[in-house]
Amino acid sequence: MENKELIELVSSNLKKGETGAVKSILGQEHPSAIAGIFPDLDLDERIGVLNSLVPETRSLVLLELDSELRHEILEYLSPSEIAKIAEEMDSDDIADLISELPETVAQQVLSILSPEELKEVETLLKYPEDTAGGLMQTELVSVKDTYTVRETIDWIRLIADEVEDFYEIFVTDEHDRLCGHTPLKQLILSSHTTVIKDIMEEVEATVTPYIDQEEVADIVKKYDIMSLPVVDDHGKLLGRITADDVIDVITEEASEDILHLAGVADYSHPIYTPTFVRVKSRIPWILLGLVGELIIAFIIVHHFKPTLEKLVILAAFMPVIMATGGNVGIQATTIVVRGLGMGSITPSQMLKVMTSELKLGLSLGITSGAVAAVVGYIISMSEPQVLMLSVAIFIAITTATLATTFTGVITPFLLYKMRFDPAVASSPFVTMSNDIFGSTIFLFIAMLLF
Amino acid sequence: MENKELIELVSSNLKKGETGAVKSILGQEHPSAIAGIFPDLDLDERIGVLNSLVPETRSLVLLELDSELRHEILEYLSPSEIAKIAEEMDSDDIADLISELPETVAQQVLSILSPEELKEVETLLKYPEDTAGGLMQTELVSVKDTYTVRETIDWIRLIADEVEDFYEIFVTDEHDRLCGHTPLKQLILSSHTTVIKDIMEEVEATVTPYIDQEEVADIVKKYDIMSLPVVDDHGKLLGRITADDVIDVITEEASEDILHLAGVADYSHPIYTPTFVRVKSRIPWILLGLVGELIIAFIIVHHFKPTLEKLVILAAFMPVIMATGGNVGIQATTIVVRGLGMGSITPSQMLKVMTSELKLGLSLGITSGAVAAVVGYIISMSEPQVLMLSVAIFIAITTATLATTFTGVITPFLLYKMRFDPAVASSPFVTMSNDIFGSTIFLFIAMLLF
Repeated sequence: MENKELIELVSSNLKKGETGAVKSILGQEHPSAIAGIFPDLDLDERIGVLNSLVPETRSLVLLELDSELRHEILEYLSPSEIAKIAEEMDSDDIADLISELPETVAQQVLSILSPEELKEVETLLKYPEDTAGGLMQTELVSVKDTYTVRETIDWIRLIADEVEDFYEIFVTDEHDRLCGHTPLKQLILSSHTTVIKDIMEEVEATVTPYIDQEEVADIVKKYDIMSLPVVDDHGKLLGRITADDVIDVITEEASEDILHLAGVADYSHPIYTPTFVRVKSRIPWILLGLVGELIIAFIIVHHFKPTLEKLVILAAFMPVIMATGGNVGIQATTIVVRGLGMGSITPSQMLKVMTSELKLGLSLGITSGAVAAVVGYIISMSEPQVLMLSVAIFIAITTATLATTFTGVITPFLLYKMRFDPAVASSPFVTMSNDIFGSTIFLFIAMLLF
Repeated sequence: MENKELIELVSSNLKKGETGAVKSILGQEHPSAIAGIFPDLDLDERIGVLNSLVPETRSLVLLELDSELRHEILEYLSPSEIAKIAEEMDSDDIADLISELPETVAQQVLSILSPEELKEVETLLKYPEDTAGGLMQTELVSVKDTYTVRETIDWIRLIADEVEDFYEIFVTDEHDRLCGHTPLKQLILSSHTTVIKDIMEEVEATVTPYIDQEEVADIVKKYDIMSLPVVDDHGKLLGRITADDVIDVITEEASEDILHLAGVADYSHPIYTPTFVRVKSRIPWILLGLVGELIIAFIIVHHFKPTLEKLVILAAFMPVIMATGGNVGIQATTIVVRGLGMGSITPSQMLKVMTSELKLGLSLGITSGAVAAVVGYIISMSEPQVLMLSVAIFIAITTATLATTFTGVITPFLLYKMRFDPAVASSPFVTMSNDIFGSTIFLFIAMLLF
C-alpha cells in the first residue's frame, strides 16, 4: 500500500474509533512501513497505532523510528509498558533503548526485566553506544570445539527461539577463547559424527568491545563478513555484530561526514528538535566563519581603503575571486577527506596528491580567470583602467585558486596526521583561509598594478 | 603485519628477486591487506605481487583495488591472463570486470570463458552496473517447493563448490516463480522427510533487475535482509544481492552525495586519473558559481557604484554578509538533503521544516548580525557614519540569513518533487542565490540608510 493511502486509512479509522480495522490494516504491513507513516501522524494517532500492534511488531516499529520521534513517544509510555516492549528486543536494542531513557525511568524498566536479561543488558550498557560493544548483541550460537555436529545441532534446537538470525556457529576452545567458526552450510554438509574442530574455519577478523564503530564498519567492509565476533582481551567471545547493524553505522557515519563538511555538528530533526538545541549544533561554524570574514573586513579597512577609493568597482569583483577560490579549495578538501575516509588515499601520498591537485587547480584557475577577465571587461567597459582591472582579475583568480588548493589539500592531511577527523575540522578552516586569501590577493595585485 | 612493514618487506624482496619469499609473506595476508599496499607500490612491483599470488587470491586482490588502479594493471595483462583471473570470480564480479575492459580485450576474454560462464556473464552484462541486475550474482541455491529437506541437502552437496556463501535456500513453485525462502537454520532443525513448502517463510522483499542500486540499498536497510532476491516481471528468480554488495553501494552513494554537495561530479582518484578528466568532473560547478558572482559584479557596477563611492568601506563588509548568509543557507540545504535521503523528512513536511528552519535562521542571523555589527563598529571607528554602517550590517545579515534559509530549504524540496537528486543540484543553486541575495540586500539597505 502506498504511504499516503496508508496514512489516510489509519488516521480516518482512528478518528472513528475503529481500532479493529486499524489492527487488521497494519497487520499486513512491514514494521518499517508502519514506522514510515509516523512522521505524518500526530501524537495521539501515533499512540493509537502503537496500541493496535502486537508486542513484537510494536517493538520493531519503535526501533525503526527516528530517535527524536521515539523519544517523544517513550515519554507517553509507562515504565512497565516500555519493559514489555523491551522484552521483545535483542539485547543490543534493549541497551540502546534504555540508554535513551531518563535515569529514573531507565531504573524502573531495568527492575522489571528478568534477571537473565538484566545481566546481559547491564553488560552492554557498560560500552559507549558508538563502540563495538555498543553495537554487538549477546545472542549468538557458540559451541566447544570438541562438540560433534550432532551435539551442535541439538544445542541449536535448544536455543533456536532465543537467537533469531544466525548464519554460522562460533567455536571456542577449552579456555572459552574463540578459536574458529563454522558456516551453517558446512554443518549441513558434514556427517553427524564429525567433530566441529575438524570442520571449523579460521575467523578472519575479531574486534574488542571498545573499538570505535567506524573502525568496525571498515573491518566488515574490508573482509566482507556477515557477522563479526567481539572478544575481550583474552580472546573470550562476548558477542557478535551483524552486517545489518554495520549498514546502519555506515549510513550514520556518512551522514555525519556530510553534515560536518557543511558545518553542522550533528543531525537534529528540523521538526522534532527544539530550536535552541539546533542553534547549538549550528552556530559554532557560523561564528567561526564570521571571524574569518571580520578579519578580511579589518584588513580592507586598514590597508586597502586607498586602493578601493581609487577604483571603487574593484569591490564588485572581490566576490568573484573569493567564491571561485573558495569553491576550488572546498572541492580539493572534499576529495582528500573522502579519499582518506575510504582509504583510497594514504597519508604517504600527500606530495603526489598535492602535485596533482595543484595542476588541476591551475587549470581551473586559468579557465575561470580567463572567463571572469573577459566578462569583467565587458561589464566595466565604461570605467577607466578597465584593461588593468581585467588583468588583475585574471592574475588574482589564478593565484587564489592555487593558494586555496594548497590549503584545501594540506589541511585534511595535517588533521589526519594529528589524529583529528578531517571531515569535522577541514571545512571551516579551509573556507576561512580561502576568503582571506582571495580578497587580499586581489586587492594587493590591484594595488601593485594601479 | 603493519602496512608500512609489509610494503618494505615486499618491495625489498622483489628488488632482490626473492619471489619465493614474497610468496610466503603474502600467503599469510588477507587479500584486502594485500590490495591495501598497492597504492604505495610502483607498477613493476604491483605486477610482481600479482604474479606471486595463487589465482584465487589474485582475483580477490584485483577486486579490492580502486577502479583506476585496477584499470592500470589490467592494461598490462593478456586476455588469457585476465580470463584465468575471471574464472575465480562470482558472475557479478566477472561482469563488472569485463565492463571495465576495452571492447576488443573484453571480447577476447569472453571467448575464453566456458560456455556456461559465458551465458551467465552475458545475461548480467545486459544490466547497467548501478542497477539491481548489475549488483546481483546468479550463484544461489534454489529448490522446488515439493523438495524434501533430504533432497534439498543433497542438492546443496552437489553445488556447494559453485555457490560459496549462502545463508538461505530460495524456493520456487511449479512455474519457476519465487514463492518463499528457508533459512539454513530452519533446514537444520527440520526432519529429513519434511517438505520444503511446509517450512518455507515468506520473502519480505524482492526487486526487479532494472531497479536503481540506491533503491536496492534502501530496501535492504529497511528490511534488514542478508540477501535480496532479484526476480523478473513474472516473478522468476534471476539472482540475489548480498548485504556486503549493498554495503559497498551505500558507501559509494554516500560518497557521491558528499562530492555532489561540494560541486564535484564524481570521484576520480587524484593520482591515477589524468588532469583533463578531473577538470571535466569539477569545472561545471566552478563555472556556474562564476556566473552567479559575475551577476553580482554586474549589479554592483551598474546599480550600486554611487553608494559604494559615498562609503567605500561598505565593500569591506560585503564578504561578511555574503559568507554568513551562505553558510546558514548551505547548512539548511544539507539538513534537508540528508533528511530527504534518509527518509526522516518527507516531502509533505515542507511547510513544517520551513517554519522550523526560518526560526533557526532568524536566531543565527540575529546572533551573528549583532556580533558583526559590534565588531564592525570597532573596526571602522575612525570612519564617518560608523553607527549607520553598523545598523546596516545588522539588518543585512538578519535579512540575508532569512532569505538564504528560504532558498536553502525550498530548493531541495522542489528538486525532490521534480524527481531530480537534491544532492546533485541543490548546492550550486543555493550558493549562487545566497551570494546574489547577500550582497544586493546589504548595498540596498546601505543605499536606503545613507
